[in-house]
Amino acid sequence: MTPTVLQSASATLDVAAFERKLRAAKAATVPLTTATAAQKNAALRRISDAILADAGRIIEANAEDLERGRANGLSAGLLDRLALDERRIMALAHAVDDVIALPDPVGTTTRGSRLPNGVSIQQVRVPFGVVGVIYEARPNVTVDIAALALKSGNAVVLRGGRAAESSNRLLVDVIRGAIAEAGIPADAVQTVDEFGREGGTLLMQARGLVDVLIPRGSAQLIRTVVESSTVPVIETGAGVVHIVLDESANEHWAVDIVRNAKVQRPSVCNAVETVLVHKAAAQRLLPSVLTALRADGVTVHADARAHEIFPDSIPVTDEDWATEHMSLDVSVGVVDSLDEAIEHIRRYSTQHTESIITDDLGNAERFLAEVDSAVVMVNASTRFTDGGEFGFGAEVGISTQKLHARGPMGLPELTTTKWIVRGSGQIRE
Amino acid sequence: MTPTVLQSASATLDVAAFERKLRAAKAATVPLTTATAAQKNAALRRISDAILADAGRIIEANAEDLERGRANGLSAGLLDRLALDERRIMALAHAVDDVIALPDPVGTTTRGSRLPNGVSIQQVRVPFGVVGVIYEARPNVTVDIAALALKSGNAVVLRGGRAAESSNRLLVDVIRGAIAEAGIPADAVQTVDEFGREGGTLLMQARGLVDVLIPRGSAQLIRTVVESSTVPVIETGAGVVHIVLDESANEHWAVDIVRNAKVQRPSVCNAVETVLVHKAAAQRLLPSVLTALRADGVTVHADARAHEIFPDSIPVTDEDWATEHMSLDVSVGVVDSLDEAIEHIRRYSTQHTESIITDDLGNAERFLAEVDSAVVMVNASTRFTDGGEFGFGAEVGISTQKLHARGPMGLPELTTTKWIVRGSGQIRE
Repeated sequence: MTPTVLQSASATLDVAAFERKLRAAKAATVPLTTATAAQKNAALRRISDAILADAGRIIEANAEDLERGRANGLSAGLLDRLALDERRIMALAHAVDDVIALPDPVGTTTRGSRLPNGVSIQQVRVPFGVVGVIYEARPNVTVDIAALALKSGNAVVLRGGRAAESSNRLLVDVIRGAIAEAGIPADAVQTVDEFGREGGTLLMQARGLVDVLIPRGSAQLIRTVVESSTVPVIETGAGVVHIVLDESANEHWAVDIVRNAKVQRPSVCNAVETVLVHKAAAQRLLPSVLTALRADGVTVHADARAHEIFPDSIPVTDEDWATEHMSLDVSVGVVDSLDEAIEHIRRYSTQHTESIITDDLGNAERFLAEVDSAVVMVNASTRFTDGGEFGFGAEVGISTQKLHARGPMGLPELTTTKWIVRGSGQIRE
Repeated sequence: MTPTVLQSASATLDVAAFERKLRAAKAATVPLTTATAAQKNAALRRISDAILADAGRIIEANAEDLERGRANGLSAGLLDRLALDERRIMALAHAVDDVIALPDPVGTTTRGSRLPNGVSIQQVRVPFGVVGVIYEARPNVTVDIAALALKSGNAVVLRGGRAAESSNRLLVDVIRGAIAEAGIPADAVQTVDEFGREGGTLLMQARGLVDVLIPRGSAQLIRTVVESSTVPVIETGAGVVHIVLDESANEHWAVDIVRNAKVQRPSVCNAVETVLVHKAAAQRLLPSVLTALRADGVTVHADARAHEIFPDSIPVTDEDWATEHMSLDVSVGVVDSLDEAIEHIRRYSTQHTESIITDDLGNAERFLAEVDSAVVMVNASTRFTDGGEFGFGAEVGISTQKLHARGPMGLPELTTTKWIVRGSGQIRE
């Protein structure tokens, strides 16, 4: 553990005030770590109630953000993501209620044994301590992540998008007031939004004060955090997601799964971006698969062989293969073999999710074994890579890294473990 | 995942050659990931045999290191750590045999279920891919870590201490030759020692080519890696380890445990550095505990109250409290309460291991719950924080961080997981 001495190049930034906030969050971890599930649930219940009770004030604060956003020329899409109304505020409160219903991961024994000398060892789940979250302009993340952090016994330091600053400030106030009433220190929830851009930079350097940092948002945001942070980061991720249509693929499944994976919700990370089809199946499958996509307004970026079979397409570029479009665009290529498909995935995938549609058992097993992604699938839609779908009940994010958590993360992924050793005077021989 | 473009400020360094080595290691992960335990064990058997068969050449190469070390004025202790003889080479081979005996963690199903729609999901252990290791001048680490990496299906890129360069080069040659004979690509084991200091720097920047980096060695080395690396790091750690003698501590246990924790092997990270005693027990415990330590040649660094009780001591400094001495030195302080002891630990501990000696159940439980360290103990020697003692069979290191692994690491901690999803045409509603 490295003692942290925060420094800033900016003369205007009050680094001492920033550090005080982080130390207050750290101090709040002491009672939080030992809080019972009942105490944490009572605090969450207060949050849910307070959000509903303060709906009017929240909407007023949100109106300031919307007004500033319109003045700054924010797109209609971004303004929509930012906007809160009565209905969305009820959804915020319900999201907190959902977290109340989740089992508390803290205290679970994950392993344990009695050593030959009689010493008992037990590995138990404990909170991380202080979780930092850097995210973009969606006020619902403020509430979601605070609720998930508290339920898993963590203090949380939030750095939200500037566009949602007024909404977030008020939401944090409401949350802090609510948990204090339930006997959890208000300082367990902090925002560093008032420190602006530099606040995010300082947060990334706060090793020893912040135990883990989770960026949520664009690929650019995540990359910046991953590259700049000395605090350990859980990378949640961009998805350049592939579906491979093997020689033996069932046409009906191919059409349904590709369409579902591309069209059902194109703006999310588990939506498919690239379809690779075996050359022996291209004539059989591409017309029906791509016609279905076109009917839903998808633009097909095709390589030369795919274009020949499906002329209603534009040329795919090398950049397309590497891009998470998050839109109604799909890249399509014809490959000579399963090896070539796997090689393409190895080159361009962000190691999020890949699926193969096949009736060939050997190819299915090879794909599952050789593709190095967080989630690998056979004959299923990539849209299933989701904490809710996996039955975790919570949406902490989808990790595309290999340390600590990989794939959809539930509440247990917001905890670490400690070893508890109980002896009766034993020493090592 | 960030595509890596390695860059170096040094004109003399052949960055392209460096990158080729890493890409070769990455390519070797493909067959390694799917290698069976039998194949990996056969390769390990060849390594063990080859080390014994090549003992003469290894000792010759080691003699070059020793000669250079003597010329450079290395201390007797460092020369001893560096030296290999017939007996130590047999120990190297036996360490590989021990790894053969360990169960293969790859392929273990850690969780799984069938979703309501019939899709089956399964979380299985898979290798990281490429593990980078940066360590200091102990040639045994070269063999140990290569064996552990291979057994867990990982390729490994080694950056050893310059003082052991000739020994390491030959050991890597021997290992590469041995595994190639067993059908595992030689490129699964790489050294980048020939790139010197800059090689380590490049390794820390090789995000996307190296999946995880493990520094092993001094606190300074570990801190450098943790602060400079963009590759995810598993921090194995320095131990400023505490023992608290509570008011009710059994004197016999206190003497035995403190003595064992300090004297049995003072140069390791689980040795105790600081003893804190409750003021109500100081008169009763300190004389016998510290007399026993003095008899074993320990220098006692005492605070004012401890010095009054045990005058055969020198003053403790603030730096002492924060120092991992790794020598026959111990810092001793008297505290007014358990709270003060916990507060002291919170301030100075490296969160490795802390133990309390007590007969008071409430204080024991408070200590276990409130001390935020990888291993917390009651009435046991801190020397038990060890993979071997915990029954893991392997010594990968002791993690002092909270992500991925915490405390003693066994072979499973050298793996990640992936989710395998099997459907029959399911799409998301």
